[in-house]
Amino acid sequence: MITKQLICPKSIVVVGASNNVHKPGGAILRNLIEGSFKGELRAVNPKEKEVLGVACFASVADVPPTDLAVLAIPANLCPEAVEILASQKETRAFIILSAGFGEETHEGALLENKILETVNQYGASLIGPNCIGLLNTCHHSVFTQPIPNLNPQGVDLISSSGATAVFIMESALVKGLQFNSAWSVGNAKQIGVEDVLQYMDENFDSDRDSRIKLLYMESIKDPDRLLLHASSLIEKGCRIAAIKAGSSESGSRAASSHTGAMASPDSAVEALFRKAGIVRCYSREELTTVGCVFTLPELKGRNFAIVTHAGGPGVMLTDALCKGGLNVPKLEGPKLDELKEKLLPGASIANPIDVLATGTPEHLDIAIDYCEKEFENIDAIMAIFGTPGLVTMFDMYEMLHQKIRHCRKPLFPVLPSIHTAGKEVEQFLAKGHVNFSDEVTLGTALSRIMNAPRPAGNKVELYGVDVPAIRRIIDSIPHDGYIAPHFVQALLHAAGISVVDEFVSGNKEEVLAFARRTSFPVVAKVVGPVHKSDVGGVTLNIKGEQHLALEFERMMRLPDATAVMVQPMLKGTELFIGAKYEEKFGHVVLCGLGGIFVEVLKDVSSGLAPLSYEEAYSMIHSLRAYKIIQGTRGQKGVNEDKFAEIIVRLSTLLRFATEIKEMDINPLLATEKSVIAVDARIRIKK
Amino acid sequence: MITKQLICPKSIVVVGASNNVHKPGGAILRNLIEGSFKGELRAVNPKEKEVLGVACFASVADVPPTDLAVLAIPANLCPEAVEILASQKETRAFIILSAGFGEETHEGALLENKILETVNQYGASLIGPNCIGLLNTCHHSVFTQPIPNLNPQGVDLISSSGATAVFIMESALVKGLQFNSAWSVGNAKQIGVEDVLQYMDENFDSDRDSRIKLLYMESIKDPDRLLLHASSLIEKGCRIAAIKAGSSESGSRAASSHTGAMASPDSAVEALFRKAGIVRCYSREELTTVGCVFTLPELKGRNFAIVTHAGGPGVMLTDALCKGGLNVPKLEGPKLDELKEKLLPGASIANPIDVLATGTPEHLDIAIDYCEKEFENIDAIMAIFGTPGLVTMFDMYEMLHQKIRHCRKPLFPVLPSIHTAGKEVEQFLAKGHVNFSDEVTLGTALSRIMNAPRPAGNKVELYGVDVPAIRRIIDSIPHDGYIAPHFVQALLHAAGISVVDEFVSGNKEEVLAFARRTSFPVVAKVVGPVHKSDVGGVTLNIKGEQHLALEFERMMRLPDATAVMVQPMLKGTELFIGAKYEEKFGHVVLCGLGGIFVEVLKDVSSGLAPLSYEEAYSMIHSLRAYKIIQGTRGQKGVNEDKFAEIIVRLSTLLRFATEIKEMDINPLLATEKSVIAVDARIRIKK
Repeated sequence: MITKQLICPKSIVVVGASNNVHKPGGAILRNLIEGSFKGELRAVNPKEKEVLGVACFASVADVPPTDLAVLAIPANLCPEAVEILASQKETRAFIILSAGFGEETHEGALLENKILETVNQYGASLIGPNCIGLLNTCHHSVFTQPIPNLNPQGVDLISSSGATAVFIMESALVKGLQFNSAWSVGNAKQIGVEDVLQYMDENFDSDRDSRIKLLYMESIKDPDRLLLHASSLIEKGCRIAAIKAGSSESGSRAASSHTGAMASPDSAVEALFRKAGIVRCYSREELTTVGCVFTLPELKGRNFAIVTHAGGPGVMLTDALCKGGLNVPKLEGPKLDELKEKLLPGASIANPIDVLATGTPEHLDIAIDYCEKEFENIDAIMAIFGTPGLVTMFDMYEMLHQKIRHCRKPLFPVLPSIHTAGKEVEQFLAKGHVNFSDEVTLGTALSRIMNAPRPAGNKVELYGVDVPAIRRIIDSIPHDGYIAPHFVQALLHAAGISVVDEFVSGNKEEVLAFARRTSFPVVAKVVGPVHKSDVGGVTLNIKGEQHLALEFERMMRLPDATAVMVQPMLKGTELFIGAKYEEKFGHVVLCGLGGIFVEVLKDVSSGLAPLSYEEAYSMIHSLRAYKIIQGTRGQKGVNEDKFAEIIVRLSTLLRFATEIKEMDINPLLATEKSVIAVDARIRIKK
Repeated sequence: MITKQLICPKSIVVVGASNNVHKPGGAILRNLIEGSFKGELRAVNPKEKEVLGVACFASVADVPPTDLAVLAIPANLCPEAVEILASQKETRAFIILSAGFGEETHEGALLENKILETVNQYGASLIGPNCIGLLNTCHHSVFTQPIPNLNPQGVDLISSSGATAVFIMESALVKGLQFNSAWSVGNAKQIGVEDVLQYMDENFDSDRDSRIKLLYMESIKDPDRLLLHASSLIEKGCRIAAIKAGSSESGSRAASSHTGAMASPDSAVEALFRKAGIVRCYSREELTTVGCVFTLPELKGRNFAIVTHAGGPGVMLTDALCKGGLNVPKLEGPKLDELKEKLLPGASIANPIDVLATGTPEHLDIAIDYCEKEFENIDAIMAIFGTPGLVTMFDMYEMLHQKIRHCRKPLFPVLPSIHTAGKEVEQFLAKGHVNFSDEVTLGTALSRIMNAPRPAGNKVELYGVDVPAIRRIIDSIPHDGYIAPHFVQALLHAAGISVVDEFVSGNKEEVLAFARRTSFPVVAKVVGPVHKSDVGGVTLNIKGEQHLALEFERMMRLPDATAVMVQPMLKGTELFIGAKYEEKFGHVVLCGLGGIFVEVLKDVSSGLAPLSYEEAYSMIHSLRAYKIIQGTRGQKGVNEDKFAEIIVRLSTLLRFATEIKEMDINPLLATEKSVIAVDARIRIKK
């Protein structure tokens, strides 16, 4: 519950306030004072009458009614203080900085529970405990430094780690990135990252609110809510980037199925971010660089012009953009000749446009104008302007400032001379701009942004899927575990997924009759043993009745054999689809080409059920082996539409059969005309 | 030619010196003065008696004998000044800053030639023209800023772009990276990047010289020399990292063979760097980070301990290291329990070791000591210590300083609070340390370094290769272009590469007789048409004489058919080897699995001929599909030793048959026992 008293309190009391600014209780009061909090400030400290010039009370019982309380007192004193403030002082927001709660001991966890009970009873907000606090344009209720420049159009940072939030602000500061708010949720006893996002979504005011959200998370407690509100915010025009740290952990978990081994917990995160449209970052440096890009107008295309007065950085930036699938197109035509006339002799104009080291602000002006107005195939402009120290850059950066204000295409300033032109860069940032001091870091961030898809929405594609039948089948399955082949067949049929015709029997004559009907060649597989191939329980390409009869007899003598299954022998490219239920995330669906592509090359892409057709196509297209699906070097491709259809329908099946914990269809055999499931396994747990 | 007068002149004259430090002729004199040049400084300017306090002469003819001349005068005045100085003033080193030479006009190129003639005649050095100059511990002959901190153990920077050198120094400065020298070679009329490296190699003094070289190049003019001296320096204990910018350009060049299309000019660079043992970087940020890592003791293994007082950065660093194939092993055992006792309650010790936000310098001391002395499975330590601003970090960083001085394992300081603890970080850097302010950038740089192989040397493996035979065959080939099958066979035989038995004839009876001898099934291929498959000129799996006779007749009627080739039909895993001659680099050899692996997945690795066995194995191991070569999921692997042998022998063949411009063996068929070339094409140009 996020109350208005938390966001914009009329009064704040710091409980445990101190004159010593090297203690959290002193530092936070200093930050509140220096942050020009407009409301009333109060302090509580039994030993003082006044703390840092603020009226001080001996105990919370003595304080007048106060909207927000910040607690910097030992953990064991917090429950009572919260109780008194909430019940007697109308306090409806609490920020508890103190550590020593559930993160440390069982007793601490009990204290936390007590506090939560109280704040919930009174409909109050609780940030923390064990956090650095909350910083916004109204109040600086954090005990840490640095305090970034604040701006209602700056970024909202929500972090599950306080120290990381601090270090992210350090990294943002040198880039000129401004903040609207910074939330450190600490133990997140009441308010977690998802709650803050939900609040921002539900209360989004497109005229007033910041459109940039940066997240740092070490675990995703409520993926559904994260997905819902992140997508919704992005649909409303916001842009979100996030670090989910801890991607390398685990991987060692037991997994009984094929898909189980392929799907790491990180593929669930990957799939969630893709579905939500969140740009995934892996470092503070990347997150703040992406944040800086977000402050500029949105890119409408992938074609960049580079304007510079130094060759090298332009070349390195071109490399980085091309590596990320973006373009630095060659410029051509009469307008280019016109531009050349207006620059210094020797200036290079093919793109990068190099106005030379002796190029003036006017040359910058002209080059940017041409890129904005004359070159239709340019979507955005990078301006790389450092200095070897001969002249100051004030005029150049003032020109850049003017161009950024008026250019209708996004214009990225790359100012590498942060030391030599330190003062000039500072002045430029003070005008509200950001700076990308390393061109390749910018290029990489842009690729990440441009390659993140739009939010996919959460609509379930029902066409072709018989949901009541799915439920009937699932409900009729007697045991947990891998389910019998006829259940698998029935579920795939109900989901509208084509399955190879097959027949299971322990009776030789029946089997032969089926094979005659479906026509040879056929495949025979033993029913019973789990690892069929290993015991010689699979025979391909059986061309006649006599051979089938012999194989039937042999297979029925294998240990655990109960029957033999016969299928027509299909040909085609092997495809693979799998799914795994990830706690809290739901089903992660994987697709790829079969065989070595999955097993050796791990060439799979992942999505989170339910999947839209757009997502399914995007998954297929992001396979490294996509060219094989398209058809390559004389080889025909496979029916991509059918493949996408099966991915979508499988994801719908999973949405209505959450009892399915793991499944794979491997292989599907695909031709230009059809994609047919040949073998599938499903494990359920009710 | 690099003279001692260039490296450490006794006297320097700035020609075109100016009192205006906003001009190169003023700025360079200021830098020389501020850099405390110990020798005699002189200036030339017809309008002044003294420039910035330095005695000034009206013309170069008036100057006393001077070792080094820096020219900052118009291009057209340079040749005469150089002539006078070299012939009359014993000047044996020139740095020409001026532009307006070959990079701009033909007339400029002629001026450059004239100057080169003069300096060569007198055995003098020439840096430039069109450069920022040369900076070392003896003299600061650059006109640019910043001037980095100088230290004989700092890095040597050699750059083909002056502005990029300046921006690299900007990026180095904030990290505390110190320099021994910075060379801007400009137009490199006499001295290029390779020459500087050669000089450093041939004059290497292990007691005195810096062991770290950073390079920035946009083209590699003399790959052989770069390879030779870079490898040699690395063998002598140096460490080299380089940016080769322009990796994305081209790719559109015409290529007639399979390998031609696979081998981009960048694979030649990649192969060269791998052979030399150079760490390849792609940005200034990366290059300077790698440079900082190089200042620390060399890593002996891949296992890292992370000591920190903040959780998040430790997790992100762990992710980055694991992604790069490095480890953050779990710590265990009684010594770990002992360590836990000595830290604060709640400290986490599994690795990362989190001494908590309230951890003291003593805790840092203890944790590092345990990692250094007690945990055998730790090769290096990362210390991440920022601050939320409550207390200063002077004591903490003093402790870190002491630990770095005495720790026998490499200890990497990660100090993120560059703003809030700005003074503390500055003091720490002033003690000669570097700082990695972003932990993930460090992790990525470490992976790059650890994954760069050792220099491979340039030894040619002759065993099994009949060099005289190769020369005889090459010399006997009458025409340029794709050579006839029997020449291909003969060359592969001479190189000791097993080739499938084959027989070519236009006579049906002979063909049938061969097939009978070698035993069916066989493969028949038409000889004559270039694209055999496209015209129906390849038939596999011919099982009997009658079938072969029919195919023979059909093929001989195809357009351009001159004969039919018959081979026994082999089975096995398809492998691929190709090579392409790259101007100046020599032969780039590619290997991989055949078919879709090469064509669709571009899963190839490259090396520069001649290749050692170590390199060949390293190429094979770096394939994504290596598991297939090893054998996977019940499928047998292939004979890796034979594959490596063929790669090595092919590279030897190429070394002695540089007339071969393109070739590929595709496929080779590989089993557990043998690897046999089935089809090969070779194009020569004499």
